[in-house]
Order: sequence, then structure tokens, then C-alpha cells
Amino acid sequence: MRLITGLSNPTIKALRALRDKKHRKREGRFMAEGLRLLTDARETGHLPEMLVMAEGRERHPLLDLLIADVEAARGDVIEVSEAALTKITGKDNPQAVCGVFAEFDTGLSRIDRARAPLVLVAQAMRDPGNLGTMLRTADAVGAGGLILIDDCADPFSVEAVRASMGAVFTVPLAQARWDEFREWLRSGDGQLVAASLRESHDYRSAPYAAPCFVMVGNESRGLPEEYERECDLRVHMPMLGRADSLNAAVAGAVLGYEVLAKLGGQPN
Amino acid sequence: MRLITGLSNPTIKALRALRDKKHRKREGRFMAEGLRLLTDARETGHLPEMLVMAEGRERHPLLDLLIADVEAARGDVIEVSEAALTKITGKDNPQAVCGVFAEFDTGLSRIDRARAPLVLVAQAMRDPGNLGTMLRTADAVGAGGLILIDDCADPFSVEAVRASMGAVFTVPLAQARWDEFREWLRSGDGQLVAASLRESHDYRSAPYAAPCFVMVGNESRGLPEEYERECDLRVHMPMLGRADSLNAAVAGAVLGYEVLAKLGGQPN
Repeated sequence: MRLITGLSNPTIKALRALRDKKHRKREGRFMAEGLRLLTDARETGHLPEMLVMAEGRERHPLLDLLIADVEAARGDVIEVSEAALTKITGKDNPQAVCGVFAEFDTGLSRIDRARAPLVLVAQAMRDPGNLGTMLRTADAVGAGGLILIDDCADPFSVEAVRASMGAVFTVPLAQARWDEFREWLRSGDGQLVAASLRESHDYRSAPYAAPCFVMVGNESRGLPEEYERECDLRVHMPMLGRADSLNAAVAGAVLGYEVLAKLGGQPN
Repeated sequence: MRLITGLSNPTIKALRALRDKKHRKREGRFMAEGLRLLTDARETGHLPEMLVMAEGRERHPLLDLLIADVEAARGDVIEVSEAALTKITGKDNPQAVCGVFAEFDTGLSRIDRARAPLVLVAQAMRDPGNLGTMLRTADAVGAGGLILIDDCADPFSVEAVRASMGAVFTVPLAQARWDEFREWLRSGDGQLVAASLRESHDYRSAPYAAPCFVMVGNESRGLPEEYERECDLRVHMPMLGRADSLNAAVAGAVLGYEVLAKLGGQPN
């Protein structure tokens, strides 16, 4: 363990830079905050390469476990001032600890379609909070993963990791272009489902089949028409008010829970 | 219509200040952005007192309608520079138009429990994006309103209004302390329902009854125990992963759609 003082230390600057996507991609590293999240990560086999703590705070037993594991794995454990932690995380009241992790492989091979009755798919989801929320929902419905199609927000951004509440470590995550995804999907079993206004089934009585790939589209434009046409099943939810769409993460959750209720007890 | 130039003009400063809650409350005014949202507002009987447009942009027919209505109602229509609009909205690529509205009355009398089979209730919801998303969901499920209990984010903040996608104008909105809400609730028909881990029903087979008040708790602490105990019905959703909770707006939507499916076709 070592103490780093001063805000202009190169390590502090490098950590601060991980909030920027370009730096994150160049380093292949991302940051996760908070003892609870880091403990979830540890318990699912993800140890940070570097652990960064605020100096002088009271020690939590779970933090001691984390420090011991990181040091045993020859990781770096550093203490910094509160001011430095605020600078690193961009938050006024930062959590007492954060960790730097190596980014995961996010190829489609990460997804095992035999593992669960459903998989969530997000297309061009631009909001990192929505994306993290989708990860959190995927964890809750026991999905076989989340697949990000086309230009989505970065799942390793601080905002997405935060909103995922640790699910970034527990849910298999893949990123692919549409053509690549479609080819992979059609190389095996899989029903592609999306919410749509065109010739669609009521979402409560639609003939879902496992493995069911539940896809939601971009926050403002929805899904491209070609993608909707590729779906094996189009469904609609009641929209009783003035609006004609739900928040994308909400739509994914309502559909995901419906599919789980219908397919959750069945073998794939 | 008048043109305002310069960033330090008092009107620009006053508009900019509406992003701050304290100023917003003092003025009793809030801001909504975007032609689509302002058109939804107009069509549901809400005209801005002031309409603020970027100068020199191409005119949309719906904007012309809006201008005509605001001027007929003796409202103010002003043109400003792109830079001023960026300053006012805090967005780098601001929408071409925004409007200043008088805040609504948000007393419990706004809620008509005979109007719909369900009402959404959020307790200490701190994230304005979640709060706006709840409004949007309330619109979609045809809820009789959204009731905000205890210290919630401000529903008139720019972020909440934006996330509501116009539902702030279409969904009856009330704010109350817990004791006040409970007294009002118990003065008439109403089943209070919340997600809970204690002695709860499966959310798919629970005995919902209209008018059903679907309550979700604070993002990190959930509902206080006393509030859970006050519920007439406690339900649980499957949580198949590591986490023990959903995003609050997601939980409200999954429950809201379930209650709608069960009670939607029935008279109150």
C-alpha cells in the first residue's frame, strides 16, 4: 500500500483520464466505485488491478478483504486525499474506494444461448444510465446476457457502471454491429422479439419461444425498419396516454419480465 | 416578438436561473424544451408564458401555431442567439425552442381516484431522470396520476421535464408528506401496494384491487419499514441474479404494467 499526495501526481491524472472514453479505450481499463460494487465484483471473480482509497476513513471489514485479495494478486493499493478522490471520480461526495479493472472481451462468443430463456439486446442505446439500467435488469431477470448493437454508449463508462449496480461484472456482455449479430443469431436457435407498432401481437399473449432475444431500439429514433422486419415476433404494450413510446430501459424491463414469466420455468 | 441580443441581458440571466431549484420555486416558473414537447403541452391546454427561440433557424409549421397561440394569449415571444440558448438550457446543441410555464398546483386534490384503475407513487425518489421516467410510464399505463412522497427530486427541473417527454403536462401530479398522503389515501377507496421482501405475494398472482396505488421507494434505501407495513399488499418480482433490487423507475413500470393487465379492463 502506498500514499499518493497532491492533485497533480501522474497516477491521479491517469485515473482521472479514465472518465474519458478515448483514454479508457487506449488503456483498456475502466473504473468502478463503491465498496458494495467492488465486493460484488470480487465475489464474482473480478479483482481490480488498482484499488484507490480515501485516506483516513474508518476501515470496513469488507475493504480489508478486498485489500488483502488485491495485494495477494500483486495489484496496486493506493491511498489518496478526499480531494484527489473527488477529482478522480468527478463526484462531490465520492465513495470511499474505487477500483481500476481491465476491460472484458465483449465478443458475441461471450453469449451462451443455452444458458437462459432470454437475452436482452439494445440497439444504439445512447444514454449510459439507460445502458447500466439494462444490465441491472438483465441480472434480475436472469438473462443470458446483454448484447449491444451498433453505436451504443460505452458500457465501461463511469455512469453505466454506476447504474448497473455491479451487473457489469455479473452479466455476460457483447458488442456487435447489426450484420454481425444477425449472422450469429441465425447460426443457431433464437427468436428475435421487439416492440413495434406494425402488425404486432399483444405482449401478454404473444408466442414467445426460448431462447428469446428481446431487443429495444434507440431512445429517440426507435429501431430501424429493417431491424423490425427481421424480428420473428413483434409485440406491443398498451400505450394509454399521449406518448407512443416508453423509456428504452423501461420497455426492455417490462418485456423482459413478461418473457421471463412465460418462459422462465421451461427448459431451453 | 422581439429579439434579445447579448448573453448578459437580464432576461437571459433570469431564464438561465430557472435551472436552479431555488430560483424556480421563487419564480413559480419552470422551463420545457423542444417543439414536440411544447406542442404536446399546447394540445393539452398548457401554453408557455414565454416562448424562447433560436434566431435564424428554419420555421416549422407547428412552431408558427405555437407562436400564434402564445401571442394571442398575450404571452411573450423572444428570439435569442444560439449561444444564449445554449446558456439558458445548459446543452451544447439546444433544441430550437423552449418555453417558460407557470408551475402547477400539486396538491393531493389533483388526484381523482375514480379516474383510473391505478396511480403511481414514488417515495423519496432523488434522481430527476427516474422521476421523469415515472411520469412517462404513468402516462403510458393510463395512471390516474403520480404522487411524490417525502423529499423527491423536483418534477419541474429541466432533467425531469426532459425525461417525462411531455408527461409532466398530461399526468396529474401531486406532492405530499407521508402522513398527509396516508390520511388522504385512507379517506376513500384505495389499495396500497409495494414491492417488498417481507411476507409478500408473487407479483403475477397477487390480488390487486382498483384503485391500486403502486408505490416504489428511494433509489438506495428503498421504502422505510413503516411504509411497507402500511401497505395493503406486498409483492415480489423474481430477482434471479446477484442484486436484490431493480432501478426504481423500472420497478414502478414492471409493477404498473402488471396491475394494468389485471385491472385495466375492469370498472373501478
